Order: sequence, then C-alpha cells, then structure tokens
Amino acid sequence: MQAEIITIGDEILIGQIVDTNSAFLGKELNKFGISIYQITSIQDDKAHILKALKEAEENADIIIITGGLGPTKDDITKHTICEYFNDTLIEDKAVLTNVEQIFSKYSAAPLLEVNKQQALVPSKATVLMNHNGTAPGMWLEKNGKVFVSLPGVPFEMKALITEQVIPKLIGKFKFPYIMHKTLLTYGLGESALAERIATWEDHLPNFIKLAYLPSLGRVRIRLSAKAFDKVMVDAELHNQINLLLPQIKDVFIGYEEDESIEAVIGKQLTEMGRTLAVAESCTGGRIAKSFTENAGASAYFKGGVVTYASESKVKILDVSEDDIKNHSVVSKQVAETMAKNVRLLFDSDYAISTTGNAGPLKGDSDVEVGTVWIAIASKDDVYSEVFNFGNLREKVIVRASNKAFEMLQKFFLKK
Amino acid sequence: MQAEIITIGDEILIGQIVDTNSAFLGKELNKFGISIYQITSIQDDKAHILKALKEAEENADIIIITGGLGPTKDDITKHTICEYFNDTLIEDKAVLTNVEQIFSKYSAAPLLEVNKQQALVPSKATVLMNHNGTAPGMWLEKNGKVFVSLPGVPFEMKALITEQVIPKLIGKFKFPYIMHKTLLTYGLGESALAERIATWEDHLPNFIKLAYLPSLGRVRIRLSAKAFDKVMVDAELHNQINLLLPQIKDVFIGYEEDESIEAVIGKQLTEMGRTLAVAESCTGGRIAKSFTENAGASAYFKGGVVTYASESKVKILDVSEDDIKNHSVVSKQVAETMAKNVRLLFDSDYAISTTGNAGPLKGDSDVEVGTVWIAIASKDDVYSEVFNFGNLREKVIVRASNKAFEMLQKFFLKK
Repeated sequence: MQAEIITIGDEILIGQIVDTNSAFLGKELNKFGISIYQITSIQDDKAHILKALKEAEENADIIIITGGLGPTKDDITKHTICEYFNDTLIEDKAVLTNVEQIFSKYSAAPLLEVNKQQALVPSKATVLMNHNGTAPGMWLEKNGKVFVSLPGVPFEMKALITEQVIPKLIGKFKFPYIMHKTLLTYGLGESALAERIATWEDHLPNFIKLAYLPSLGRVRIRLSAKAFDKVMVDAELHNQINLLLPQIKDVFIGYEEDESIEAVIGKQLTEMGRTLAVAESCTGGRIAKSFTENAGASAYFKGGVVTYASESKVKILDVSEDDIKNHSVVSKQVAETMAKNVRLLFDSDYAISTTGNAGPLKGDSDVEVGTVWIAIASKDDVYSEVFNFGNLREKVIVRASNKAFEMLQKFFLKK
Repeated sequence: MQAEIITIGDEILIGQIVDTNSAFLGKELNKFGISIYQITSIQDDKAHILKALKEAEENADIIIITGGLGPTKDDITKHTICEYFNDTLIEDKAVLTNVEQIFSKYSAAPLLEVNKQQALVPSKATVLMNHNGTAPGMWLEKNGKVFVSLPGVPFEMKALITEQVIPKLIGKFKFPYIMHKTLLTYGLGESALAERIATWEDHLPNFIKLAYLPSLGRVRIRLSAKAFDKVMVDAELHNQINLLLPQIKDVFIGYEEDESIEAVIGKQLTEMGRTLAVAESCTGGRIAKSFTENAGASAYFKGGVVTYASESKVKILDVSEDDIKNHSVVSKQVAETMAKNVRLLFDSDYAISTTGNAGPLKGDSDVEVGTVWIAIASKDDVYSEVFNFGNLREKVIVRASNKAFEMLQKFFLKK
C-alpha cells in the first residue's frame, strides 16, 4: 500500500518556493504506516495534471494532490480533477456557508462570485471542510484507490491531513507498521563507518532498510523497519540496535527524535521547573526564535536580548568596555559576561550567550569570520567554548545555534 | 526545450529532509531559459530509478539527477545509470586523484576501498570534477538528450551546476529567454484583486503567463514571459506592467526581487542611514532573526529584546504595571510603550514591537488567541494596530512578523 504526492504549481518548478508540504506529508503519512512511492511536482497545466493523475493511479493506492485550488484563473486543478473523474461540479451548501463565514470574520472585502465558486465541488467528491480557508479538501475514490485534493497553503493542508485525511485513510485501509530509528554519530566518515559495520549490515533482516545520511560533520544511520507485526518489528529493531551499539560506541552521540533539540530542551526545563534567558550577538535572535516557536515556551523561556552592536552589549548587559578593547568583542570574557548578566536581567536559572562574527565582513571585531564564542551560565557556574564555523553566514548562524543547544544539554548532564 | 529534475533518496520521501536542491535548480536553470517540466522524487531503488529515467527521457530533453552517489551500500544510482546506458564502470584517474587529495586534506581517516570506488564512472560519461567532495558529477547523452547525475550534498551540487553544467548546456542548446516579474500587493484578497484586473489579464499575450500567489495577507502577482526574442519580451513585459500599475496603485508595494521584505527594509535603512531596534513578545525573536540573517545587518540593526514574560516587559522596557493591569499585556498601551522604550534603549531611529498571544493557551493575558498588537516608533511618532491572526501558533508568529515588516515600510512612506 503506497501513496504518491502530486504538488501542482509553477512556483515550485521555477524555484520561487521550496516544497515543504511534501516533507510534512511524507513524515506524517509514514507515522501511520503509509509509504510514499514518489513525489511529483507538476505545472498548472491541464494535460500535465491528467497525465500525472493517470501515472499516480498506476503507481499508488493513495494519491494526495496539493495546490492549485485558489479562486483565480490560474487555478485549473478542480476542473481537471472533474474531467479525470468524468464528473461535474455542483455547489456544496456547507462549503458556501464556510466561505461566507470566513469572509465575514477575517476579510474586509466583499464576497465575490469567484469566492462563491470555491463552493463548487465534483459531485462524486466527499468534502473535507477547510476551517482555515475557503478552498475545501476533496476525497474521491476510483477502482478502490483514493484521491485527495487539498489546498496548497501549508497550514490549511496540515490541518486537513491530521484532522480528516489520516483518520479516514486509517478507517479504510489496513496499513503496516513503520518505524524509523535514526542514530547520530560524530567523528567518523560515512565510508569508514559503513566499512566498520558492514558485517552487521549484511545480516539485517529484509524488512529493515539501512541508510547513511552525512551532514556537516555528523553521519546519521537510519534504520527503517516495515511489517504488519508491530511487536515483532519493535523487538527486532531493538535487537539490531543492541548488536550495533557496541560497534559504534566511540562515535555514537544519541538518537535523533522527531523533535528538535530546542523542543527537547524546553521539555527538560519544564520538567525541572527551571527557566532560561539568552543573549545573542551573531545568532541574532535565532536561538530565542527556536525556543519560542514551540508551544508552551512561556513556561521556561523568560526572554532574551539581541545585542548586535558592541555599545548595546555595554549598555544593556554591562559588558566591560575594557574587556572589549583588550580581548575583542568576540572573546571568552565578553561571552561569559553576556551569559552571566542576561541571566540576572531576566532572573532565569540558565542563560546562553553567543558572540561571534558570521561574516561576510569582519564587523566590530578583528577575529576571523566564523569565529564564535558561546557561553552557558547557571546561578553558580559559567562555561564557554570557542568555535570556527567556516565562512558561510547562514551556516555560521545555524551551527552556532545548534552548538549552543548542545552545550546547554551537556551542562544539564553535569548538574 | 524542457528539463526534468529527478531527486533520489528515501530521506525526501519519508520527510526527513526538505528538498531544497530542486528549488535551487528550478531557479538557476530558469535564469538561463531552461524550463522545468517536472520534479520527481523517487526511492533508492533500481527499478524505480530505471522507470523514472525512462519517463523523464520521454518528457524532457535535459534530465538532472541528484542524490544517491555516496560511497555506501544504500547508494545504487551509479550502477543503475550504467545499466540504463548499457555501459560499464571504469576507473577515472583524475577522479581518483581528486578523492585522494580530498582525503589527505580534510580527513583523518584512511582512504578505503569504497572511497576509491567513487572514481568508477560509466565509460560513456564525461566527468564533471567535484572539487568539494569525492562523488563526481557525470554527463551522459542519448538520442540528443542530456542526462546529468550530481551528488545530493547541496553545496557540491550547486558548485557543479553553476560552474560546469549550465555552461555546458548553453554550449549545446539554444534556450529561449525567460523573464519573471513579481509584483507585491497587500490589503486586497486574491479574488478581489483578480476580479479587478480581469480585463487586463484577458488581453495578455500568449507568451506571458500570470499567477497569483497569496501568502499570509499579501498577494504576489507573477508574470512569466518566455520567447526567443529578448528585446521583444522585455518591451512587452514593461508595457504590460505599465498597463497594470494604475489599476493596483492603492495596493502595490513593490517588486519582489530575489530578496525578502526584511532584506529590502535593510537596504532602505542603510540607504537612509537610519537604524532599527525591536521589542518582541509573541514573535519571540523571529523579527530580529529575519533581519540579522542578512549580511550587512549590523549597519542598521542595533538589536532587540525578547520580553516574553510580563515581568521582563516591566523591568527591561519600563512598561507600566498599571497599563498591564488595566488594559492587559496584549494592548495598545503596552505595544506602544515597548516600541518607544526599546528605541530609547538601543538609541535607534525606528523601533518595532509586538505583543500578542500566539496560543495555543491564553498565557499572561485574557485576550483571544491570535490577537497581536504591533507598534512602530520613530523619534517623534508612534503608531500601532491590532490584528487577529487565527489560532495556529506558527501562523500567528509568521503573520505578525510579516505584518510588522509591512507596517514599518508604510511608516517609511509617510515620512
């Protein structure tokens, strides 16, 4: 039982937007045992849509179509689906009411004829009501196969998938159990790692697939198991990991969960009843943003400052001007003072600080581009480290943020 | 003349990574007149790769394959390509030297047999030397069609595309000229906008395609023109935009370059010689992060505070406790005080503040989830507005940030 994802829209093909919808769909459907056979991104074009639908019907049992459901002329998906199913469009009263309610609640604009047309759906379709937008989801069946058409706006699509599509799919089909376990390793290259564990890999059972995912100094080992017997799958995965771990114990740093490290830290802090504040220079707000985008952040995240200019480090965080002069603004002294003082300013239990140069120019400091000092402070301790994250700005910011999260987690372990 | 992109790798299909490579390829190839017919993401599976190659050969003249070229057992792309071309693998001396050099320069690990195998390429392939990694790019031709296989690591793939693949394609084919112009509008819904400019749209010449891209409060109008006569295309696009502009002058805010609105604001501030500070509550650092991820931010971005807890608004931004008690922490009074005082704290020319409730719980305030007050302050003015951005946390944060950028741009226009 496999699914195919079809995304419709020239904006993906010309690179105007990155297709994040498909990654969400892949991850979400996988959780419920639905494998994705293929993701196909196609043009807003009738012939192309018809061809993609036909091919997907040959490849897969479940076809999820996103995009192309707006009210304007460039959106031809609904008419094309209608043609594919040899159907006609009819007005759905409940959808019309939904459109009217959304307009009266969120829009100052009058309801136009084109908006009302969003209530037109193929007569054979089951409507999936979109409570976050005017374009409804549509569920159609043909020869035992399911076609679901969803709006491309990410949060509308996501709500429809989790609240309606997945429950309906589970009601209709019996899916195998799929389990992925990803082991993070550090310090050994992909090929050396693969050679070391080759014998183990050769003896993996057929229903467990292995993949190596190298990325910025780390190699992730992903084990994917798929079978109908959940108990057997869990036991065998457990068994295989127990055989693997002794062979990689010098480079194994942990499991990659579905959650970001920030979310995991947030949970740890909430459980400990502790709080956090951050003082950011080169990471420019990214660390604060990473925590606050998780629901429940207010339980542990007291706040932060982005002291981008040296003068604001002095004024707001009481960094010593002498330290900046003698050691540079990118220094152990400045990083540690920032962490200590932001903790006091926000009256938090822990604090993170970053000061560095993300480039491309050297900025307020003479240190090499990519140099970042990171400090962690608690009530009675402060600890810092220096790194060089290379000379690509985005990479420096992302790696500095990730390293800060890692350092904070290690700091917890010491306590 | 069209291209198809094939990305190989289960990590995309299970949603472990987002496919950013294809967006890069789409944008980059488009610049040189190469349209993308389709993007197809497939499994690390021989039969699937063979099928995708065959279909792509039917659809397109240029097939760009990324991924699946690592040294380990899960990568079968090279062998499958060999089979598709009825070819055998031979060792390429120059690639072997490259692999050896990369290992001696960057790796402490010994060179293994699997690493040396990266020097095996199909005998019919032209090698595209990868100076950033060990897996070479490969260029193959069949019945006048071009197949290019590239490693999936983004920076390796990008360098190969810009330095080698595109120059070779331009040398081989004659491509039409493609030009996209995207106009940003705000304040009018997609359907109302489309109705207003319907007559203009109906009279567009055939070689100009129109698309509406709505996104969280803004609608982008994209004109895509494609023809061999560059002078004619530029003239006609110019002409059509001149006909359109008078019809949308109340909602038009500018052209979307390859840049984000934050980057545009950054340039405006730099040109004006003015500076900015931000005080964020519900946006939690996202606004600061959006500015600081752009190179050159230190020229105009003084810094910011994330006063997540009410007490930090009082302590750091001198928000009045009475205002919080009488008007709620999500109020005009609090937003305006935050903006005024963060401007003074960082000694900036302008300031942005946000205070709201991103949900899912009500937090420090009784106001409805999704309610956000945004204020903009200058030396002698402060202005605020209230919005409701719905009840999805991510959406509230993103929309509040975007709205703040828009309000700041409007504020500049008033000056």
